[in-house]
Amino acid sequence: MKDKAEKARAASLVLAATEFDLRNTALRMAAEALQKAKANLFDANRADRDDAAEQGLAPPLLHRLVFDEGKLSEVIRGLTALADLPDPIGRVTLSRELTPGLCLYRVTCPIGVIGVIFESRPDALVQIASLCVKTGNAALLKGGSEAKRTNRALFEALGEAFSRAGLPQDTLGLMETRDEVGQMLGLDSLIDLIIPRGSNAFVREIIKNSRIPVMGHADGVCHVYVDAMYDKEMALRVVLDSKTQYAAVCNAAETLLVHTHSADSFLPCLKPMMDDAGVTLYGCRRTRGIIACPEADETGWGREYLDLKMDVRVVDSLEEAIAHINRYGSGHTDAIVTTDSAAAETFMTRVDSAGVFHNCSTRFSDGFRYGFGAEVGVATGKLHARGPVGTEGLTTYKYRLIGKGHTVGDMASGRAFYTHKDL
Amino acid sequence: MKDKAEKARAASLVLAATEFDLRNTALRMAAEALQKAKANLFDANRADRDDAAEQGLAPPLLHRLVFDEGKLSEVIRGLTALADLPDPIGRVTLSRELTPGLCLYRVTCPIGVIGVIFESRPDALVQIASLCVKTGNAALLKGGSEAKRTNRALFEALGEAFSRAGLPQDTLGLMETRDEVGQMLGLDSLIDLIIPRGSNAFVREIIKNSRIPVMGHADGVCHVYVDAMYDKEMALRVVLDSKTQYAAVCNAAETLLVHTHSADSFLPCLKPMMDDAGVTLYGCRRTRGIIACPEADETGWGREYLDLKMDVRVVDSLEEAIAHINRYGSGHTDAIVTTDSAAAETFMTRVDSAGVFHNCSTRFSDGFRYGFGAEVGVATGKLHARGPVGTEGLTTYKYRLIGKGHTVGDMASGRAFYTHKDL
Repeated sequence: MKDKAEKARAASLVLAATEFDLRNTALRMAAEALQKAKANLFDANRADRDDAAEQGLAPPLLHRLVFDEGKLSEVIRGLTALADLPDPIGRVTLSRELTPGLCLYRVTCPIGVIGVIFESRPDALVQIASLCVKTGNAALLKGGSEAKRTNRALFEALGEAFSRAGLPQDTLGLMETRDEVGQMLGLDSLIDLIIPRGSNAFVREIIKNSRIPVMGHADGVCHVYVDAMYDKEMALRVVLDSKTQYAAVCNAAETLLVHTHSADSFLPCLKPMMDDAGVTLYGCRRTRGIIACPEADETGWGREYLDLKMDVRVVDSLEEAIAHINRYGSGHTDAIVTTDSAAAETFMTRVDSAGVFHNCSTRFSDGFRYGFGAEVGVATGKLHARGPVGTEGLTTYKYRLIGKGHTVGDMASGRAFYTHKDL
Repeated sequence: MKDKAEKARAASLVLAATEFDLRNTALRMAAEALQKAKANLFDANRADRDDAAEQGLAPPLLHRLVFDEGKLSEVIRGLTALADLPDPIGRVTLSRELTPGLCLYRVTCPIGVIGVIFESRPDALVQIASLCVKTGNAALLKGGSEAKRTNRALFEALGEAFSRAGLPQDTLGLMETRDEVGQMLGLDSLIDLIIPRGSNAFVREIIKNSRIPVMGHADGVCHVYVDAMYDKEMALRVVLDSKTQYAAVCNAAETLLVHTHSADSFLPCLKPMMDDAGVTLYGCRRTRGIIACPEADETGWGREYLDLKMDVRVVDSLEEAIAHINRYGSGHTDAIVTTDSAAAETFMTRVDSAGVFHNCSTRFSDGFRYGFGAEVGVATGKLHARGPVGTEGLTTYKYRLIGKGHTVGDMASGRAFYTHKDL
């Protein structure tokens, strides 16, 4: 594993100097290569699925394992779209004369070597490998063992296309055992960033076992808060969409908070709508005084159901709603429904989450919907990148300083002086 | 300790909503408070120094402990200058219509709670506490135990001024024992970032013992590389300044690399100049074939002398110089002296350091010299902030999304469509 990581590091230093066109050509060649390798890819996937079915893998997991015509054209479209995006590398974000003849430039550049660990879905391999190439990073990839053959076939097709385009041989590395992952997590001098994509428990495990920075999220405990002044029809729409548009994902709402002034008018209208949608509401004591529903466990809020279930709590004030979210939320996305713009402003300033929404569904919290074109995932940490992460999150920057023999001694002695003039 | 951290967390949520003017007023009131507390501060510092002298603290450390008229006016000037800087919070860095009526804004905001651990110099307490307030963060501070009385006096004067200005009571917290620091390092759910300022070993120890992200640097192993085509007078100036302008700091050069084509002409001129400056050169075998000097330990480059000592190595090519730096450097700052602009470009692209300099001294790598006004420190990590870190490095951002009842269901069903129009 150390050898793979060292090779990836060496490749990353070459990648950092590659031209924009070369990286885009490599992405387009990868799209063609996948198209050509189609039969091979489908065979590998069929073998993986047969094995998995034999081993009794649960149907939802079997479903995620599928790599078929639909998935293939999706990843090919993704590769082409990514090749069309502007260059995230080499952007000058600051240029300043420090003193005559001495100029400072802050320029975006790749991070280096990125370790990516994902569960099940083999299309994630293509998506993340291509994002790394677009941003000039080398990637070490580990997919779910149940998709082993598919992942290897995808890796070979991509790697071969990238090499043929002229990228370093070791731009991509494949890990195939848990043991390799364990070793990778310890290689903090060679690997700059880990991106885990998978279940809550899986991500926690990665975070616990590595000193390498991790970008991503474990929980997605999103809230919708219906304020004292609100538009009932709008609140119903937003709560319904936040909970039911796709319940199994991280940006679906898990808890509904309702201001005590609104609870009597809102909850009786919400209940039949949620019943129709198949959602079970779990209410606090005050909620159950208004509508009939099972009891919520009030000793521990912040449950992530990822299912058609929702906790409901009546609160006395905006402040109580904010405090609830900051205490039990996961810093992912939280929405307020209100016609009071001062309340919205307070909510959006004080709620400490990556996404703070006013009068819209939490389900909008997503890189594609934000218009980032491609997405690594959603980060709930506060450093580096926060919220949906596109190509920008896979870059860092360096300071280039260009002089004509300038010394600090001359500045200190007063022979020259700082101008700090932005160019 | 957990109680202190929880109070800081609560304070941080209020701080995030404070107005720019209030934070600046607090900084100006702190400047006045320190001026008024002068006698008290000097008494405390005198007592600390008496104790330290009695306990036989080494003279350089005793020197760092001093908080006198000079230091006081320096920190007061710093507070006033910081109050004059623009607001790092609330800057809109992206604004986009996602679909008619639904607008996305990316807005800078504070990180939250920052743990700061620094050795010796009590003025660091003022500097960092004030940077945290400017950026709307709460701070937990721990200084060197030898400056205990001074730190407490500074903390009390600042804390009292901040409260009087209207900031939350717990904006600043003081830790006074090692035990508290140990506990703090484990509070990753309450503390967002650790900034350690001190020796190499000290910073490594912090990094090893915490899962909280750490911003800063352990080593500063900076290089100057003199290329095949070079201006001799310029090279001499840059090497001399990089090594000797202030040898005890992280941005001083520790290793000189010389292209084999230049070694014969350059080294014999450098030697007497370095002798005059009191610098001992440690040469590789080839260096010692040209000038007389003690032998460098070639089995392990990358020594951080922080002293008037420098390793010298002759290399065969630009590539060898780059490989040396990427292997033995610390990613802090590295300079090339060359008249060949293609070589400079290659060097600056391929050297994987926060600062890559052309024809100027490594000593310029500093927040004040870059014109950032105030500095937290220099970060050698690649995520979040890199290089000299000013107020920007103490901020993060959140996404605000404002709609009129927008749902993802409407987008998915085609009743509405994404426009992704930047505003």
